[in-house]
Amino acid sequence: MERHSELTFDNIIKNKLNPKVLKEFNKIYYGREDHCELKVKESSLKSSEENNFELAAYSFSAAQESRPPRLVKIGLIQHSVILPTCESIREQREAIFTKIEKIINTAASEGVQIICLEETWSMPFFLCTREKEKWAEFAESATKGPSVIFLKDLARKYGLVIVSPILEKDDVGTWWNTAVVIDEEGNVLGKHLKNHLPSVGSFSETPYYAPGNMGHPVFDTKYAKIAINICYGRHQALNWLMLGLNGAEIVFNPSATVAEFGESFWNIEARNAAIANGYFTCSINRVGTETFNSTSGGTIERTYYGSSYVTAPNGCRTPALSRLRDGLMIVEIDLNLNRQVRDQWGFNMTSRLDIYATELKELQSQN
Amino acid sequence: MERHSELTFDNIIKNKLNPKVLKEFNKIYYGREDHCELKVKESSLKSSEENNFELAAYSFSAAQESRPPRLVKIGLIQHSVILPTCESIREQREAIFTKIEKIINTAASEGVQIICLEETWSMPFFLCTREKEKWAEFAESATKGPSVIFLKDLARKYGLVIVSPILEKDDVGTWWNTAVVIDEEGNVLGKHLKNHLPSVGSFSETPYYAPGNMGHPVFDTKYAKIAINICYGRHQALNWLMLGLNGAEIVFNPSATVAEFGESFWNIEARNAAIANGYFTCSINRVGTETFNSTSGGTIERTYYGSSYVTAPNGCRTPALSRLRDGLMIVEIDLNLNRQVRDQWGFNMTSRLDIYATELKELQSQN
Repeated sequence: MERHSELTFDNIIKNKLNPKVLKEFNKIYYGREDHCELKVKESSLKSSEENNFELAAYSFSAAQESRPPRLVKIGLIQHSVILPTCESIREQREAIFTKIEKIINTAASEGVQIICLEETWSMPFFLCTREKEKWAEFAESATKGPSVIFLKDLARKYGLVIVSPILEKDDVGTWWNTAVVIDEEGNVLGKHLKNHLPSVGSFSETPYYAPGNMGHPVFDTKYAKIAINICYGRHQALNWLMLGLNGAEIVFNPSATVAEFGESFWNIEARNAAIANGYFTCSINRVGTETFNSTSGGTIERTYYGSSYVTAPNGCRTPALSRLRDGLMIVEIDLNLNRQVRDQWGFNMTSRLDIYATELKELQSQN
Repeated sequence: MERHSELTFDNIIKNKLNPKVLKEFNKIYYGREDHCELKVKESSLKSSEENNFELAAYSFSAAQESRPPRLVKIGLIQHSVILPTCESIREQREAIFTKIEKIINTAASEGVQIICLEETWSMPFFLCTREKEKWAEFAESATKGPSVIFLKDLARKYGLVIVSPILEKDDVGTWWNTAVVIDEEGNVLGKHLKNHLPSVGSFSETPYYAPGNMGHPVFDTKYAKIAINICYGRHQALNWLMLGLNGAEIVFNPSATVAEFGESFWNIEARNAAIANGYFTCSINRVGTETFNSTSGGTIERTYYGSSYVTAPNGCRTPALSRLRDGLMIVEIDLNLNRQVRDQWGFNMTSRLDIYATELKELQSQN
């Protein structure tokens, strides 16, 4: 299956350690000796080979209780853009749709129930160019835009909940960095707006849109209570915290982040959030190199490192998807694990939020 | 030097990967290709061999500025108890003092300026026994107790700031889990009380003392602004956050934690805190196996896994000390890095604390 030999953290480990040492390493690093790989269908493997995406599948079980398990199958999709960014915006978008449809078909055939795509999945991440007008057509309606129309059909067809992170243009023309939640009947259940915007290197998003003004919504879907923390928001502990306090069982972190800075953070932050808040986190990053012609001459090039992964509330995590290739990660989880971990560790019981609410309020009034 | 061949995360990696792959791995896992080891004196190596403790030394530099560097040398000490827990409390404590004095002598000869010891460093961690009265003599005054008297002399002699985490008995006889800060002239500068208490497995501390009521003090020492987050408090993002908001440049996390649960958290939480808050974190855990005779018969045994390490605000971290042996880790840091990282990433600028203060207050008033 692994036709591309890649120097990734996970491959380095897998290839270099003998089985006994590998188990010991896995226990300390991943939190468990065995990755609990899920078997997938022959037809899914064939699809992944024909369509050139990595397919990985794992499970996280919970202890048996007298209460029944609450199994949910989630799918994370990381993908690159296809056409050069100088092609028409419509064609660029449709080329992505064609690819994503094949991956979603495969996910659905494996029984996946909730899918999350990467940040602004239907376009190249032009927000690093510092240019706006020439890319404006990529911004789309959260309820009537091409991405939502495309995904609603698939959601209905397969009974899928889909998290669709897009560049939104609302009814009065204001832009937002938005994650649209589509339910299993193809209806828009609601949306989340990115709460924290970076000004790091060339990733300066405040000229494009404002930070979210919708707080920390949790979406009570057919399969689980889910929430979204978009990209740079993963650096803010309180953003993760509020989603947990509002009842999230799974938090998706759709991202667009490059190796030049922060790759060593990638394996830390979402995993820490899962531990601290007693829920599952799903980290999704785009892949591939995107090249833009700058109006002022020259080109701008950005390479994303993929490496999507899932962490359970007990801190155990999956290996990562490729740093280079498109990929689908399927993870079967038992939501009972959230409650079991909270019962064991009691981080919520011992959080003393009243003190912090007061200390933060006082700090605000001093400033 | 490494006379004990140990199966640790760091040793596995170092021994199994070739130099090129090791660099790539280090970049992704530790945040930098090279660990920037510091050279230590022959006499220090000799002391570490004679006294059977591991000695490791690293540095974290900052970019050059027109402002001068703010170099500080910190020392982390992890150690096991020596005498059986059935010996007299006085003798148990003095055996630890004798050992610690040798390690501090070595640290001082290397120019270390701030030292932090492990949680309740002057005693076995009897708090896992669920018994109280028979161990009561270990509880001591934060200003006049044997640990403080012992350390004040060393602090004055060497011009050291020392963080001394003890089991405190205050003037009215109430117990606290306390970190005493002793300044370079041997005065008690102040103390921090453990803010969050575990009830996890047999580590149930609420029968012994109450959660801290002194908030999140930061100590403006001669060498740096330092703060303490004791053991289980590392699981609480807001605990780390408040220390940062109050101005901490280095946060020490003295701990007593066992492998049976949470070892996979160890490398995540303090590192995440350094990234999220733009300061250095120092994780210190005790080592060795401690055995207690239970009044109700049988024995209670707990093994601590050491693995102390330091993380810089840019997410880079040192390898860990041994899982089994006493150890001294010396790390030279440049405090300019805190400001540089904050300027680059802007997590403080984008934190929107006003929103969270309000959301948390509202949540409290609903409960």
